[in-house]
Amino acid sequence: MFELDPTHDASLRSWVPGANGHRDFPIQNLPIGIFSSAAGTQRAGVAIGDQILDIPATLTAGFFSGIARLAAETASGSSLNAFLGLDPEVRNAFRHRLSELLQTNQPDQDKLTRHLHDSTSCQLHLPAVIGDYTDFYTGIHHAENVGKQFRPDNPLLPNYKHVPIGYHGRSSSIVPSGIPIRRPQGQYKAPDKEEPSFGPSQRLDYELELGIWIGKGNELGQAIPIDQAWRYLGGFCLMNDWSARDIQAWEYQPLGPFLAKNFSTTISPWIILPEALAPFRIAQPSRTPGDPSPLPYLQSPSDQKQGAFDIRLEIFLVTPGLKSKKLSPYRLAQSNTRYMYWTASQLITHHTCGGCNLRSGDLIASGTLSGPDATECGSLLETTLGGQKPILLPSGEERRFLEDGDEVILHAQGVRQGFQSIGFGPCSASVTA
Amino acid sequence: MFELDPTHDASLRSWVPGANGHRDFPIQNLPIGIFSSAAGTQRAGVAIGDQILDIPATLTAGFFSGIARLAAETASGSSLNAFLGLDPEVRNAFRHRLSELLQTNQPDQDKLTRHLHDSTSCQLHLPAVIGDYTDFYTGIHHAENVGKQFRPDNPLLPNYKHVPIGYHGRSSSIVPSGIPIRRPQGQYKAPDKEEPSFGPSQRLDYELELGIWIGKGNELGQAIPIDQAWRYLGGFCLMNDWSARDIQAWEYQPLGPFLAKNFSTTISPWIILPEALAPFRIAQPSRTPGDPSPLPYLQSPSDQKQGAFDIRLEIFLVTPGLKSKKLSPYRLAQSNTRYMYWTASQLITHHTCGGCNLRSGDLIASGTLSGPDATECGSLLETTLGGQKPILLPSGEERRFLEDGDEVILHAQGVRQGFQSIGFGPCSASVTA
Repeated sequence: MFELDPTHDASLRSWVPGANGHRDFPIQNLPIGIFSSAAGTQRAGVAIGDQILDIPATLTAGFFSGIARLAAETASGSSLNAFLGLDPEVRNAFRHRLSELLQTNQPDQDKLTRHLHDSTSCQLHLPAVIGDYTDFYTGIHHAENVGKQFRPDNPLLPNYKHVPIGYHGRSSSIVPSGIPIRRPQGQYKAPDKEEPSFGPSQRLDYELELGIWIGKGNELGQAIPIDQAWRYLGGFCLMNDWSARDIQAWEYQPLGPFLAKNFSTTISPWIILPEALAPFRIAQPSRTPGDPSPLPYLQSPSDQKQGAFDIRLEIFLVTPGLKSKKLSPYRLAQSNTRYMYWTASQLITHHTCGGCNLRSGDLIASGTLSGPDATECGSLLETTLGGQKPILLPSGEERRFLEDGDEVILHAQGVRQGFQSIGFGPCSASVTA
Repeated sequence: MFELDPTHDASLRSWVPGANGHRDFPIQNLPIGIFSSAAGTQRAGVAIGDQILDIPATLTAGFFSGIARLAAETASGSSLNAFLGLDPEVRNAFRHRLSELLQTNQPDQDKLTRHLHDSTSCQLHLPAVIGDYTDFYTGIHHAENVGKQFRPDNPLLPNYKHVPIGYHGRSSSIVPSGIPIRRPQGQYKAPDKEEPSFGPSQRLDYELELGIWIGKGNELGQAIPIDQAWRYLGGFCLMNDWSARDIQAWEYQPLGPFLAKNFSTTISPWIILPEALAPFRIAQPSRTPGDPSPLPYLQSPSDQKQGAFDIRLEIFLVTPGLKSKKLSPYRLAQSNTRYMYWTASQLITHHTCGGCNLRSGDLIASGTLSGPDATECGSLLETTLGGQKPILLPSGEERRFLEDGDEVILHAQGVRQGFQSIGFGPCSASVTA
């Protein structure tokens, strides 16, 4: 699977100004995305500090050779689907070469500097054409928190610990960080009303999720065995699965969420490569003694040993009131990817076990990641108990659900003793009427 | 909306041998698809009898001009997404020109004959790159039949007659007619067992559905008003939404069907243009007195008057036993698109009412279309009451669910007094181990 190597060395330093100690993008991270500068077209770039290295330009200038060159060539169009389809070894050769190019001992710094763009003057786009998007439900504490609101004595359904629950989401409305989210109109029925009505959602919520990019695809009818599943991972991002709770409550029986979720989904636009997350891999922590063993098709000793991730997650809120009083973003919750009940490999294997084909650039999401503590809720539905217990903000404002003008900011960071921390970059958006 | 015009005249005849009186593709139909002949690439063609008119070749030969030429130019690649995105008026100019070219009075028959291909020597492909696929649940008799198995006294959920129920399906595994369907493996739990197990589905089923191609798309955040929705219709097809009932029963709570459906979905590859179905439009028949009025955003007098379709549907089964005894395909059921509780326009408007964007080439499905009678069930789940009441075939075989080697054939035909009948062409596939 994903081994530690010299690119993870905490002592590595970059010649790019501002990269060393950068919260998200030090030289140990090197995520890839699609950007455009004021004058240029959409093209691949790699984030380093607050700069973006232009990959097609660096390729044309002759900085890649051998396998790394093959990889860079797949990243020369306006989307990264072909790059995502690479074998991990090829992708890693590219990552190693990038690490070399951006290290302090690099003799070609001057030539490379020409291919750097200030990220504040660039726009980030969706990194791939997303064929299909699947949302799982691996956050066991979220499932329990939500289940408790309906079934206090029996919050988890009988299938939860046996089968990874998931459903297909909408790919057309996935947008990169920064695009405003329009409050959806829809049908809902108030508990005290006889009939439903139509209007703007009154219970707009966020959901904190980990996004998983599919790397290589599989053929229709060909399942991916659990021990091979890591080879099909293309990368990671943050996701805000905006949810309209009133629309959801009325429409979701019996076929699941639909318009309550498909009006927009925000993702962080940088693809964090699986190799960059190697230091933050951990043994599967969320199963507790007494839980059923996964069925054999979902069992793998190596996946059990290092298939999960320890990545810190945070949710911040900026309201019009906080902004006008110049108060800091309010931290709504912290959480962690370790609360996933199933690993990314288990999700890939389960998704394909019946023959369903995944394609490079498909997106899978973890489902809402909440922790066991009340400060670790990944949605307002949980934090405010469905609006019953409002949050009081330092501005004096109250929130049961999101209001127009609110901005939700998600943050993710891998932190481990002896290693350089890395982050996922921005995943934020404001709500508009 | 869609008006009757001279292209619908029952007396129109074609010079193409075999076209007149053809069950599916007389000159009044003229569906478009993507085909390849032995030597050629994938390209657009129009079905006429048992022949296919090569559109790019006909275009190059100068047979289109003006608006019809603009339309034909959008159909010159390997998929019809751009063609689907045309305004109805442009698409209809193309249809009118095709009708002229293929009528008996056409002076250029000899030149056009060169661009005809025998359909039996051609392969049909998916006509478009399907961005997103949405499956609705508009078959009210199906919803009642299935609901009765769980809740005999209260088969329909409270939301059913207010909100069009739908969910997102899998686009990657949609295949054209003729591709064998592999029986999926998956997790299921027998009612008498404590624990789930993993293996080939024992309860494989078909579902008879109408497919709706999205024509023009809408921008994210921009709802499509009900009176405009017909302009976003791109065409129609048949769909078999293969379903593994044992996997479905175990996985579907609380987020809906997932692996039970995403292993494969079969569609008929010809796009039946909305204009070709004009003679078969009818007033919305499925609402009964006492049903709630649709909320205003789903109400339109013109849609209510002619938004539904009278298209006869049939399901046939061919088993190894029937084949070896040279017996005819067994008709499992007949049904009709009139059993849709919501019109295609209502589905489009509802889908976009919260801002969700549809793209040209997206596919929407009606959900299983069953009638009120026991001979009108669109799935085996209904026909055999979940396997309790097996079907006895003339070969002596019994069927509760599908077995390996079984072939399911769907058929659709518009029939109306005074008009030429038209069909949708083949939608069939065999089940393999």
